[in-house]
Amino acid sequence: MQYPKSLEDLIVEWMKYPGIGRKTAERYAMFTVNQLSKETVELFAQTLLDAKSKINPCKVCGHFTDLEICEICADHQRDGSKVMIVESSKDVFTIEKSGTFKGLYHVLNGALSPINGIGPNELNLFTLWTRLENQEIKEIIIATSATQEGEATALYIKRVLQNTDILVTRIGYGVPVGSNLEYADDLTLVKAIENRRVF
Amino acid sequence: MQYPKSLEDLIVEWMKYPGIGRKTAERYAMFTVNQLSKETVELFAQTLLDAKSKINPCKVCGHFTDLEICEICADHQRDGSKVMIVESSKDVFTIEKSGTFKGLYHVLNGALSPINGIGPNELNLFTLWTRLENQEIKEIIIATSATQEGEATALYIKRVLQNTDILVTRIGYGVPVGSNLEYADDLTLVKAIENRRVF
Repeated sequence: MQYPKSLEDLIVEWMKYPGIGRKTAERYAMFTVNQLSKETVELFAQTLLDAKSKINPCKVCGHFTDLEICEICADHQRDGSKVMIVESSKDVFTIEKSGTFKGLYHVLNGALSPINGIGPNELNLFTLWTRLENQEIKEIIIATSATQEGEATALYIKRVLQNTDILVTRIGYGVPVGSNLEYADDLTLVKAIENRRVF
Repeated sequence: MQYPKSLEDLIVEWMKYPGIGRKTAERYAMFTVNQLSKETVELFAQTLLDAKSKINPCKVCGHFTDLEICEICADHQRDGSKVMIVESSKDVFTIEKSGTFKGLYHVLNGALSPINGIGPNELNLFTLWTRLENQEIKEIIIATSATQEGEATALYIKRVLQNTDILVTRIGYGVPVGSNLEYADDLTLVKAIENRRVF
């Protein structure tokens, strides 16, 4: 027996999300038609469209924002001489929550992974080189994940910057190896940022 | 630091789904704006609306369908003398997948739970009594979950039917106690239906 077509279509859409398999997708689809009010479903559909159309990468750092320039880049109270390089916007929120860093960010939107066809051109690096020319940056703190891809990305950026005056550091102490930044607790992040070493 | 408003709104909507907490909602919201194409998000929003507007409970049995009368009730090949009572439409799909039952269904859309304010009037029972008057039903197979609520519901239906000629049975053998039907494998369901006992 098959699900009604419109329900099956919805299940297929849910399965496009990471970690949602067939059973979970069925559950969410049924919850949608069974438990949620028409108004709630309409609101959900509208917020999906709104978020997708309004959220764009910041022209300076790549962090996503609903403005032209994100609120971090636009904040002149922050220390523009330090730029922390992270893999994703999620990492920016994670570090901001810990409250330990008052510099700026640069979001790569990924990490080097030759096997998956992700080279330097696939990352948000071009705007980083532009920033280095136009802004007075004294320190680049590399906060990519402690994974193979994150390390490769860190090494790549270090090599590009090795003949410049810029101090390149890497967060290290505390972040568990093989894990993503988003799972680190605040204290671990505080330690990791305090104990950054020259890279 | 706060998320951009349209992203925060989306996170809140995701959290309305069962089992989706703040972290998971953030992940899905970011995946939506970061990884999915505009077309995919538009399609997702549209399928949500379509499913919600097209899927309705079958006028006869309460199982959801995009037709007036669901395809099971409309199928004259099926044995209309047996009606299996289940808590949700999901259970209908689960039992249909096992292929062991050729009768009809009645979907209660819940189970008795006085603590949560769910009494007989909150369940799809009125249409069941109508069916008993209008159709020639010989056996009612109660397939509510082996939970406290499911058992209470089974007992309630048994009591209402005790002075009629209808044979009331309860699936029993095989379905793990305290679990929901949807997690039972096909073989367990075959056993449970074969070994139903007079209730």
